[in-house]
Amino acid sequence: MPQGQPVSVPDDGLTTRQRRNRPLLFVHTGIGKGKSTAAFGLALRAWNQGWPIGVFQFVKSAKWKVGEENALKVLGASGEGGTVDWHKMGEGWSWVQRGLHGDNSDNEEKAREGWEQVKRDLAAETYKLYVLDEFAYPMHWGWIDTDEVVEVMRNRPGTQHVVITGRNAPEKLIEAADLVTDMSKVKHPMDAGQKGQRGIEW
Amino acid sequence: MPQGQPVSVPDDGLTTRQRRNRPLLFVHTGIGKGKSTAAFGLALRAWNQGWPIGVFQFVKSAKWKVGEENALKVLGASGEGGTVDWHKMGEGWSWVQRGLHGDNSDNEEKAREGWEQVKRDLAAETYKLYVLDEFAYPMHWGWIDTDEVVEVMRNRPGTQHVVITGRNAPEKLIEAADLVTDMSKVKHPMDAGQKGQRGIEW
Repeated sequence: MPQGQPVSVPDDGLTTRQRRNRPLLFVHTGIGKGKSTAAFGLALRAWNQGWPIGVFQFVKSAKWKVGEENALKVLGASGEGGTVDWHKMGEGWSWVQRGLHGDNSDNEEKAREGWEQVKRDLAAETYKLYVLDEFAYPMHWGWIDTDEVVEVMRNRPGTQHVVITGRNAPEKLIEAADLVTDMSKVKHPMDAGQKGQRGIEW
Repeated sequence: MPQGQPVSVPDDGLTTRQRRNRPLLFVHTGIGKGKSTAAFGLALRAWNQGWPIGVFQFVKSAKWKVGEENALKVLGASGEGGTVDWHKMGEGWSWVQRGLHGDNSDNEEKAREGWEQVKRDLAAETYKLYVLDEFAYPMHWGWIDTDEVVEVMRNRPGTQHVVITGRNAPEKLIEAADLVTDMSKVKHPMDAGQKGQRGIEW
């Protein structure tokens, strides 16, 4: 919880205001809960500022994010804050399992198409906040080149904030990010034999 | 990311359905970002299920959660999901600083009053999800007795889910919780001399 004062002031030739408004690249990684959930929570703040928000779901079925999706769509349509566009790349949790264990050429192609869309939107400055949900996976799997992602992020125009979530975020991505949080699992009810439940897991 | 199958099935005499619908106590702790943000993200899922939600802010100024507050209030009033009640105990970020360094008898009393309200609501089953934001602090500071909190949580009636956030969550609370995530800071822009910015930090 930052308390308003940075620990050091860098010699980067920027004014405090310029530095303050620098576009940020966030990475939420680790094996614990809350990576995507915190990204959608961040979207609530962006919405409150009236920012256009683009969500790109790279993995998982709609079921797993239906609460966030419905809530953000209602907010986006409320006319009181920013707009929300919700893009789904993956077509189900089984998609991930195929990705891990079976023939995944279709999924690899879909992930690449999603990334091409993100690049077009960044170039056009379509959104002010991008939630690239589970985007760490296609990088980890080698479907999308991490060097290219880092390059695109470094050179994105204007003030466009980007949040990338997912386990196993590549080291190069972490190096390039401004803010990285590792969500560690201390305890999870699945460990005690409990299955996921409505309203909690989705 | 649970994939639907628990790693073990406990010998607790419960059916899968009973175990699935067990009320959960979440703790989001650690020094990294995302503890509160993930709690408010969880509230989006609860809202989507039509659950009544009670938020209790124990620390920090309204400024720091204004995005989440406005968004959840708009959602609560939309008529499409659950209701949202937003209770503020703390009266400013300075409140925390006084809590740490100065005379805090008033703040201690306010925190205790907040906890008394939470106990009344739990007894009355007022909400289905409670976000006790930054509630780990008054326990850590000894203002509120952790043993009592654990006792109240263990004996709460019905199916009431509770999320407690904040650094330094007491060990006894972690033991009593069903799901604990530790948010670790890997990197933060404040370390590079950047101050917080609108839409990102609040």
